[in-house]
Amino acid sequence: MAEDMMLYWGSGSPPCWRVQIALEEKNLQGYQHKLLSFDKKEHKCEEVMKLNPRGQLPTFKHGDVVVNESLAACMYLENQFKSQGTQLMPDDMKEQALVLQRVFESCTLQQKMYEGLFYNHYIPEPERHESALKRNLENLKTELKLWEGYLQKMGKGSFLAGRNFSMADVIFFPVFAFLPRFGLSKERYPNLMEYYERVKERPSIKSTWPPHWLEKATGEETLKDL
Amino acid sequence: MAEDMMLYWGSGSPPCWRVQIALEEKNLQGYQHKLLSFDKKEHKCEEVMKLNPRGQLPTFKHGDVVVNESLAACMYLENQFKSQGTQLMPDDMKEQALVLQRVFESCTLQQKMYEGLFYNHYIPEPERHESALKRNLENLKTELKLWEGYLQKMGKGSFLAGRNFSMADVIFFPVFAFLPRFGLSKERYPNLMEYYERVKERPSIKSTWPPHWLEKATGEETLKDL
Repeated sequence: MAEDMMLYWGSGSPPCWRVQIALEEKNLQGYQHKLLSFDKKEHKCEEVMKLNPRGQLPTFKHGDVVVNESLAACMYLENQFKSQGTQLMPDDMKEQALVLQRVFESCTLQQKMYEGLFYNHYIPEPERHESALKRNLENLKTELKLWEGYLQKMGKGSFLAGRNFSMADVIFFPVFAFLPRFGLSKERYPNLMEYYERVKERPSIKSTWPPHWLEKATGEETLKDL
Repeated sequence: MAEDMMLYWGSGSPPCWRVQIALEEKNLQGYQHKLLSFDKKEHKCEEVMKLNPRGQLPTFKHGDVVVNESLAACMYLENQFKSQGTQLMPDDMKEQALVLQRVFESCTLQQKMYEGLFYNHYIPEPERHESALKRNLENLKTELKLWEGYLQKMGKGSFLAGRNFSMADVIFFPVFAFLPRFGLSKERYPNLMEYYERVKERPSIKSTWPPHWLEKATGEETLKDL
């Protein structure tokens, strides 16, 4: 069933990873895929550009349907394969509202994660300012405190939006997973780190773990005092 | 039916405006609402903070469901009132995929619009660089060319994702509407500007037009050469 799907992806990219997790959760193993290198600019290759004029990964095709935005692809998979695998959007409207709320808040976390951790990557050297980086890290801290509070309120053993793993976790986890890699403190964020340790053992996450993360840890402790 | 809804909003905010459009399209007129002033920092008032720890607008409540992220609120309204008013998500999966794709691409347009038009607002004076602003405007131009191409392909009289007005238009329009305000050229973006002139006459858009935009044009022509 999944052989008519093709995913172009890059290792460690949260948008790619979430589509991979959604595919696993919906029991769509066996899809075709191609791992491309951002460093070699393979995401700008003709094969991708033909399907995705933005030249970005993920690029995803199912039959003649092309849907490249990662949240769009995840929602498409959930709607298309509603009764297959894990139900990622609850039927109950109140529960669904919370899932949607956390899905879109995860985009804010993603932006603040990029701006805090990858400032030097995105800002050309002559335009960098210590004050901006400091502010970005403060914003990331404020953001993380919010999420730490959300999980605390949900109670032990919960997922982001309730007792069940949902679309909120699919979207959030690949972003959050960067933070322990850069030394986020278990003492200061106990609920987030408990969530992380638990969810990373989930089969859909383990089987899609970014290959280059398996090879080496970052060694950087950028966030240890955050 | 809509009396158990409450929307806190700010004039001209694309996230607020799209929730207002969705409410109109779903025939949910009669909801309660409160217009708050960003300038006076009213979005940080206790009444909002109680419902939205981010202190952001929109803040939206329906009965005991709180859903503040604008895309989450719009999707919630569509799912909750599926058979009422305009159907914003098509049943056909291929059409739905395109709607979802354009919805999430609109978030990219929004970011590039903010970074191009409101650079001075977001970047503290000592951290501003001509080179960064120039790059941001170039990125906005590249982004707009993509959308101009999308509309051209759809054909005359189309909406963003097909023959029918959809969630893609709800999310896109309030972002795009900033560009003509800052002088975007009809000659260089004929399809986008034809779309704009047509869609702005839609009742859901007219009745929710940002009040302070009615009072005065910007007078700025920042984008006339873009």
